[in-house]
Amino acid sequence: MKKYHEKKCIALTLFLAAGGLGSASVQAEEPISVIQAPSNLNASLAELGKKLYFDPRLSKSGFISCNSCHNLSMGGTDNLSTSIGDKWQQGPINAPTVLNSSLNVAQFWDGRAADLQAQAGGPIANPNEMGSSHALAVDVVASIPGYVNEFKAVFGKAKVSIDGITQAIAEFEKTLVTPNSRFDKWLSGDKTALSANEAEGYRIFKESGCVACHNGEAVGGNSFQKLGLMEPYNTDNPAEGRVAVTGEDADRFNFKVPTLRNVELTYPYFHDGAANTLPEAVDTMGRIQLGKKFTRAENAKVVAFLKTLTGDQPKFQLPILPPSSDATPRPTPFK
Amino acid sequence: MKKYHEKKCIALTLFLAAGGLGSASVQAEEPISVIQAPSNLNASLAELGKKLYFDPRLSKSGFISCNSCHNLSMGGTDNLSTSIGDKWQQGPINAPTVLNSSLNVAQFWDGRAADLQAQAGGPIANPNEMGSSHALAVDVVASIPGYVNEFKAVFGKAKVSIDGITQAIAEFEKTLVTPNSRFDKWLSGDKTALSANEAEGYRIFKESGCVACHNGEAVGGNSFQKLGLMEPYNTDNPAEGRVAVTGEDADRFNFKVPTLRNVELTYPYFHDGAANTLPEAVDTMGRIQLGKKFTRAENAKVVAFLKTLTGDQPKFQLPILPPSSDATPRPTPFK
Repeated sequence: MKKYHEKKCIALTLFLAAGGLGSASVQAEEPISVIQAPSNLNASLAELGKKLYFDPRLSKSGFISCNSCHNLSMGGTDNLSTSIGDKWQQGPINAPTVLNSSLNVAQFWDGRAADLQAQAGGPIANPNEMGSSHALAVDVVASIPGYVNEFKAVFGKAKVSIDGITQAIAEFEKTLVTPNSRFDKWLSGDKTALSANEAEGYRIFKESGCVACHNGEAVGGNSFQKLGLMEPYNTDNPAEGRVAVTGEDADRFNFKVPTLRNVELTYPYFHDGAANTLPEAVDTMGRIQLGKKFTRAENAKVVAFLKTLTGDQPKFQLPILPPSSDATPRPTPFK
Repeated sequence: MKKYHEKKCIALTLFLAAGGLGSASVQAEEPISVIQAPSNLNASLAELGKKLYFDPRLSKSGFISCNSCHNLSMGGTDNLSTSIGDKWQQGPINAPTVLNSSLNVAQFWDGRAADLQAQAGGPIANPNEMGSSHALAVDVVASIPGYVNEFKAVFGKAKVSIDGITQAIAEFEKTLVTPNSRFDKWLSGDKTALSANEAEGYRIFKESGCVACHNGEAVGGNSFQKLGLMEPYNTDNPAEGRVAVTGEDADRFNFKVPTLRNVELTYPYFHDGAANTLPEAVDTMGRIQLGKKFTRAENAKVVAFLKTLTGDQPKFQLPILPPSSDATPRPTPFK
């Protein structure tokens, strides 16, 4: 945090020296930046991916789709502490939002998937989640004429592969960026976009050090950090974070910092989903990460600021899925 | 059936006598009629209902919404033999499509709900389905400011009631009519809308007697009929149909005739979901209802005709649900 403050003072001096001209200079100085709409996406690949994202036939049961746990009607989450998997198994960890997940340094809380495509294959074949296998998912998709035609149009060949499936889902997920939050409007120079209370919340958020981890376009998602820096985080959840990937003891209880974009919608909070509300999450974070007890008024202001990070939610027509053929393997939810 | 054929002959004679003028006369003669788009709907009530229809917070687990089992991406069904309920309980009966359900004589396979509003309250409070209670569902909705505002706008008062919730869901469901099927275009006079094979399938469908039960706008849904008229229907499913409602022995194994609109999308078939494919369903129906063994070629033609009954699927933006407040009762999926 010290480093950030130093950098800020130098930049502020330069800014004032330059006569404080232009909102671009102001924005460049802020630790959070305006979120950029995605570009260079393949629209027909994303369209195919959207269907697959909503298709429960990628699960063994025929009941669970990507959208079941990363529900785009609900901030890209399931709003459950931990998710429900095949046969109602309780998931081990809170489902992170898919919104703006293309901006994450890596996927999953422990960063075990390098990118969205690598992530997308995980739940399909996880016996505790969608409970299928890549081979079965490919058989199902390859038996559906509507999908085969789309694979042909998108990839130039009708052959369905798990790579094609996950590539399409990832391309769709890259569209799920949420611009135009009130905070971004404020950052872009519209100083009426935040109330005095909300702007004050942002000041507290910055000056208390929250921005040390929650910064950049996604207000997080770009680093792994120790949970419980000043005080241990008490939880029954056995997850130990990044150590599971690196095997390094130093990475024990290091988790990917979650994005705070749309945080108003992505409750409950933390990797164990233990905090139901924003006031509770802000209080805990202040205490265990910053060694700081926010007053009730400060907490309320930070929460008011956080709610200005809600951007435009995904806006598209409900996809209509191509029907199974007589040859499509049928779901087996009760076997 | 005899009655229908007699009526048909008289009408045909009259039609020929009248010189066979005009497609309206032809249509009036057909046992299936063009489906009419709904009118006089309350758009803001339906919009509220759409959100509630997609909202899993109406379930105890926070995981199951109306759309889970009546998935509008998949013909308004879950494409499972029987549905998955709270804690992965196996449902007793195949989930009927919600598409065109406003045209049904009554709701549920046994017709135990008089209309869509009466139906909508059932699954919410059924411990085997959404597992909540009307009181809890009302508490949840009433704790969500976005919903309270919409209730105020729609009903003129902020007070949330189960009647308001189910009325809104029913209004949304009334929008789910599927016009413009190729068969309806053909019925309306565009004789190029069906291939010769499909038109021949319709002729077989009519002349074999399928239209005795599958007639009208929804090609079914307007009467209760005995399943297994000519031969018993073999099933392990304990449901006995309408007798559960009337207590009349004569109603044993009487089920509501399902609509055949969008039947290409609503597999598997029958109240027990035992038939995975249309050829199988057509074969069984011919045999047990009509005492007729369709040849392979006849079966294929009837199936080809049935696939022309797929109409315009629901076309709307994925609803974005208003977030819970700090006071919203949290889902309890694992309790």
